[in-house]
Amino acid sequence: MSDENRHVVLRGRPDPAVRADLFETVDAEMPRIADGQMLIRVIWLSLEPAMRGWIADAPNYSQPVPIGAPMTGFTVGEVVESRHPRYPAGTIVQGRQGWRRFAVSDGSDIDRVVDPALAPISTALHVLGMNGATAYVGLVDVCRVKAGDTVAVTTAAGAVGSVVGQIAKALGARAVGVTGGPEKRRICLEEFGFDAAIDYKAAEDIGPGLDAATPDGIDCFFDNVGGAQFDAVLDRINVGARIAICGTIGMPSFPLPVGPRPNRQLLVKRARMEGFLILDHYDRFAEIVERLSGWYRDGHLKYREDVTVGLDTAPDALVALLAGRNTGKALVRVGDDP
Amino acid sequence: MSDENRHVVLRGRPDPAVRADLFETVDAEMPRIADGQMLIRVIWLSLEPAMRGWIADAPNYSQPVPIGAPMTGFTVGEVVESRHPRYPAGTIVQGRQGWRRFAVSDGSDIDRVVDPALAPISTALHVLGMNGATAYVGLVDVCRVKAGDTVAVTTAAGAVGSVVGQIAKALGARAVGVTGGPEKRRICLEEFGFDAAIDYKAAEDIGPGLDAATPDGIDCFFDNVGGAQFDAVLDRINVGARIAICGTIGMPSFPLPVGPRPNRQLLVKRARMEGFLILDHYDRFAEIVERLSGWYRDGHLKYREDVTVGLDTAPDALVALLAGRNTGKALVRVGDDP
Repeated sequence: MSDENRHVVLRGRPDPAVRADLFETVDAEMPRIADGQMLIRVIWLSLEPAMRGWIADAPNYSQPVPIGAPMTGFTVGEVVESRHPRYPAGTIVQGRQGWRRFAVSDGSDIDRVVDPALAPISTALHVLGMNGATAYVGLVDVCRVKAGDTVAVTTAAGAVGSVVGQIAKALGARAVGVTGGPEKRRICLEEFGFDAAIDYKAAEDIGPGLDAATPDGIDCFFDNVGGAQFDAVLDRINVGARIAICGTIGMPSFPLPVGPRPNRQLLVKRARMEGFLILDHYDRFAEIVERLSGWYRDGHLKYREDVTVGLDTAPDALVALLAGRNTGKALVRVGDDP
Repeated sequence: MSDENRHVVLRGRPDPAVRADLFETVDAEMPRIADGQMLIRVIWLSLEPAMRGWIADAPNYSQPVPIGAPMTGFTVGEVVESRHPRYPAGTIVQGRQGWRRFAVSDGSDIDRVVDPALAPISTALHVLGMNGATAYVGLVDVCRVKAGDTVAVTTAAGAVGSVVGQIAKALGARAVGVTGGPEKRRICLEEFGFDAAIDYKAAEDIGPGLDAATPDGIDCFFDNVGGAQFDAVLDRINVGARIAICGTIGMPSFPLPVGPRPNRQLLVKRARMEGFLILDHYDRFAEIVERLSGWYRDGHLKYREDVTVGLDTAPDALVALLAGRNTGKALVRVGDDP
């Protein structure tokens, strides 16, 4: 990994599949900093299922990444040169530097300073970062989980789902995961401590598996998927159930997906279904990471990383993530740890 | 209207249509009361869209009415004979005496005493009763309406929808109704004071009408219908929108209705969709009726009644209600006011 700068830029839009050739790695100038700026060497890049939405030209909660621009993304990096008063050289920061080796920042795209003594710095991109906070907001704030509840979560072995299950357990709830494949199921049970896990690839219908795993019904549902898995869980909710809609990775972008209407189930069960976006909760990030760090120190939060090495591996790694082929948080190592 | 007793009993289940011949009027014994009981002469019977669900043999929030039993229903009646300490003869009560001329009660199926000085006693069955409380809970508690919001409501000319619109106006929100036919639309605008009303029978798609009526989008949606009207409103919600699911009268019971999945809209708009049932809020009934009575006294709550006379008209009146042919709250006058 040299000191030359490189970017990975977006060249096309999903139609609807995300392919690696929608991206291109290009050489870039090594930027110079002005007063109030700093130069950041990107070390870790985080890949998100939501990136499919970020690059699609469809109504979404943010503007799509422009064609020709570097792909946006969450990063952990080291300040290697600074004329910014708050971030001296040597500071480790979690920010939004995107798919680049080096980036200039005026601080506006920095989310927070990372304490390398707390945990490996890459955890700022998952269990002690956005993924952990997403799990927290969805399960604690939206679902208002309480001891004794049964919690169902989809993509249970994933970066968010695995934290949902572990927070549920830490708070005295029963955790039931839905995941794809026997290995992910094993990881849910043996590494993340789920009470039950269902392999949706092992049966046409996960209903019987859910019935066996949730004898008392389902009180909280943290959904990352939509589609048939959503329907199966919805059929088993209790009166007063709370459903947090965190993602829709199992639903195609086009055409508009159709399925059973949930209105009557929500009515009969007096249940709530609510979408949320972690970006709306940035003001509480420090407080949430503090709570997650406590659980991490106490051994309640295990994690797995699925790392590819080199900035130019990001497009293929994103495709693999969207196909569900990763095991653990998908990260790209762009540079060495300090 | 004689002093003989009669019941209207259920003889069959919807398949899926509700037909008048699912019911039969039968003579019944004039009941005698024991200690702790009273004899109630039913004066008013309330018809509800939800009655389709009450008589269907499908999973619902209550047990279905048994075949052969008198149809259940909300009533206003007069205590004509009493050996009950709380309800002396002459008391007007709102209860659940069902489709009968006379009924014995031990008080357990009485909801509350009605003050005839406040308003016509029939209002205890709509604007100052269950319908008003339903509108209140859905709009105030579930949707958390606030001044400046735009509120959309379906079945806007109906017993619940018309109160939703009027509460919205009383609280400083913009009220937009969806209703069927030019006469109901006129009533919404001229009698109930909606800011805009859309006749869903006048166009294939209510979308353009909604666009014109909601230039600032939709913040609160009180839905009684489901289906295509629901979809059109969902397409126009704002970030942070709240949707109260009060009914699904526009959705067939069988087969399970399919439609566009709402998951992505709820996610992108960080919106909430929540079913509620007024029966869960009985403990707050007195407080809610108090607040509604205040609005009524101040002229904020207008209402319309659609009355048929005679207990045996109830089945046909219910079929007409379910077909949307009523204008105003559907009531059956079973006996004379005291």
